[in-house]
Parts: sequence; C-alpha cells; structure tokens
Amino acid sequence: MPALGTPRRKATDHMTESIAIIGGTGPEGRGLASRFALAGLRVVIGSRDAARGASVAAEVAATLAGREGAVAVEGASNADAAAGCDIAVVTVPFEGHRATLEALAGQLAGKIVVDAVVPVRFERGPRPVEVAEGSATEQAAAMLRESRVVGAFHNLAAESLLDLDAPVHADVLVTGGDEGAKQAVFALAERIEGVRAVDAGPLRYSRFVEGLTVLLIGVNMRHRARTHVRIEGLSA
Amino acid sequence: MPALGTPRRKATDHMTESIAIIGGTGPEGRGLASRFALAGLRVVIGSRDAARGASVAAEVAATLAGREGAVAVEGASNADAAAGCDIAVVTVPFEGHRATLEALAGQLAGKIVVDAVVPVRFERGPRPVEVAEGSATEQAAAMLRESRVVGAFHNLAAESLLDLDAPVHADVLVTGGDEGAKQAVFALAERIEGVRAVDAGPLRYSRFVEGLTVLLIGVNMRHRARTHVRIEGLSA
Repeated sequence: MPALGTPRRKATDHMTESIAIIGGTGPEGRGLASRFALAGLRVVIGSRDAARGASVAAEVAATLAGREGAVAVEGASNADAAAGCDIAVVTVPFEGHRATLEALAGQLAGKIVVDAVVPVRFERGPRPVEVAEGSATEQAAAMLRESRVVGAFHNLAAESLLDLDAPVHADVLVTGGDEGAKQAVFALAERIEGVRAVDAGPLRYSRFVEGLTVLLIGVNMRHRARTHVRIEGLSA
Repeated sequence: MPALGTPRRKATDHMTESIAIIGGTGPEGRGLASRFALAGLRVVIGSRDAARGASVAAEVAATLAGREGAVAVEGASNADAAAGCDIAVVTVPFEGHRATLEALAGQLAGKIVVDAVVPVRFERGPRPVEVAEGSATEQAAAMLRESRVVGAFHNLAAESLLDLDAPVHADVLVTGGDEGAKQAVFALAERIEGVRAVDAGPLRYSRFVEGLTVLLIGVNMRHRARTHVRIEGLSA
C-alpha cells in the first residue's frame, strides 16, 4: 500500500507544543493522549473533575512507561488544561459539547481548538443528532469566536489509538477556514504513526466528516470490525 | 494492499441479469454502463429521449469494441429501459430525481432499484441539497413503495469508471433494508474490477454515503485528484 504513512504535507516540528485533551478521560481522549505523548508532545488530560483528570493521566502514563519518546502525561481540570495549552483537542461526548465549550471560551481565546466530537446517540445502532449549526465543529466555531476552530480526529477509532503496538492506518480528515490552524493540525495528526492528514475543506464540510463517523461506527458494529477510512487517489 | 479486490462476499453469478441505467447518458451512467457491459451484463442506457439513449449507447459500445467480455449496450427511453430490466440503477441529476422516479413507479414495481444519486448542487464548490426524506435513496424508497430500493455506487468517480484500462480501486457502500436486494447489489458492484462492496447499513445511513460523496467531490476539486474511499480494517 504505497500511500500509507506518506504524509501529504510535510509534518513540521512543533517541539514546544502542549496539547490539552478537553473532556479527555474517555477512550478517544485517552487514545489521542497516548499517541501524542508517544510522539513527544506534552499532553494534559482535562476533565470536569481535576482529580479524575489526574488519575486517568496516571493510567495513561503507566501504559506508556518504558516506551521510547513518551513524555509525561498530566491531568487537570478542563479549565486549567485549556488555559495552559497551545492546541486544545475536544473529545467530550456530544451531550456535553455546548456547555463545556461555553465555559472555556475565555481560556481558549486565541488558540487552535480541534473539535473531534461526533453528534451521535445510540439507540439500536448509532444515530445522528441534528445540530442546528450543521455540525459539532460549526457549533464550536459559533461559540468560540476568538478561537481558531478546526475539525479533525473524528474517524480514528479509540481502540486503534489505544492499541499502541500497531500504527493507525487511517486518514484524518481536517476541516476549517483558518489555513494556518489547519496546517498545524495536519502536522499534529501526522505525529501519529500511520496517519495521513487530508484537507477536507471548509467548516461546512464538517457535517460529512462527522456523519462518516456515524457510518463507520455502524459498519464496525455490523462487521465486528475496527475500521478506518482511507481516501484513495491522492498523490503524496 | 492486501484487501484490494478481495470481495467481502462471494460474487454470485447472475448471468441473466439485465441492467437499466435510468438517466444514464451522463458521465456516471456511461461509466457504470461500460463497466457492467465489460462484466458481461446486458445494459440498457435509459434517457428521457429514446434517441439520445440510443446514441449514447452507441458511443459507449464503440469504446468497448474489441474488449474481451463486453456485450452490446443498447439505448431506450427510461420507461422502456425500466420495463425491460432486472435491476435499475438510477443516475439522474438530483434535480430530476423525483420526477423521473414518479413516472417510472409502475415499470419499477417488484424490481431492485439502485439509487446512485447525490443531492448536490455546485456554487463555488459542491453543496449538499437538503432532502426532506433524509437522502436521495430514502426519497426513492418513499416514492417506489413496490420496488426494492438500495443505495449504492455514489462514490465511484465517473472518470475512473470511464478509464477502462484501470481497475476501480474503491469500496461501494451499500445501504438498504431488503437483504436479498442488497446481496444482489453486492454481487453487481463486485462485477466491476477492483470494487469491493461494503454493507453500510439500513436506508437511514444513506445520507452519510451521499454526504461522503459531496466531501469527495470537494477533495477532488481541492487536490485536483480523482479519489475514492476505502474502508480499512474489514476482514475479507
């Protein structure tokens, strides 16, 4: 598979970057935290409850112990994590999306905010939740007027992220209107081994990326598989 | 790429099948007609104008001349094509979707109808068209109560289908509630070299498959590429 692991864009080094995972105590948050830490980034797992953030961070750090390149993972309240980061990645369940971001608007001002939230509920299979703004990412952009909001990471299955011995063979579809922020998120995504970032267009395309995730969740359940998506036909 | 061309389900032979391409004179219709004819299926290209159907069929047949396995491609009115087929594949532009299917409900009764239509319009890039029923495929199912409606083929770029010297490296995501009809469409899709059919769930997931196509069209325009989607992680 020739395209695999071939970055479409050269990942530039952002050695000083510190990544906050907002609402990061669930599987997706833990998975992303693990992968970013493995890539040598400073990671803070945020939670509504700072103690919970710290205990999950300790668990994640334990799974990384002894692995090359992994630096410490810390825990904090969402507010402290947001205040201290360069880039925030939002992984709260959709039910908590609006309230969480409303409370953090000040801390996130001026920062790159990567929304990875999928508006989905489960009722005999995954079902989409209608979002007035069109998508979770557009909802975040509407609420965080001072932040540089980008959509990404929706389609990476938590199980794959947490399976640290295997690279993640997946494309990360990135949406947004701030080109500089998107470039930073391309680079961040491609710090995860096996991941290729693909520019999926402006914010209004976020609904399709989020919807694709609902589709993949359904495929996973139906086929008892752990799937990712690859866009074939892009030159490296 | 190990999964490539490995059918998830064994394609069964349907040697007697005759395929109508409803509204088949555009690039997508021509492309599917060419591929099905190459696979040895009888194909009728339907058009509002029977003469137009016949002339496009003659053009398609000319491009297939001398290729192994290709049988004749004929043209007809949409009504005659629908009346004579075993499986109808709908490739009208979305503007004509409702009117075309309303007129053909009688001819399509009892048949498998594969909707490949994407509700999209172009205005500085592709934009989704809202469909009250949720998706074009669900609109077809609501209108064709006597037919066995399945969604498929949305994500195959016409340019790739028409590039007959290259296999189509793509997954065809199939939605629907009629398991028998879906099995037939899995088999039909996998008659196209390089294509793998993936069960993408019930009809209500069609919106995601159609939306994914809008995303891919945008990616194609942005990257000047001809992309397809692959679901990674399914066992063969």
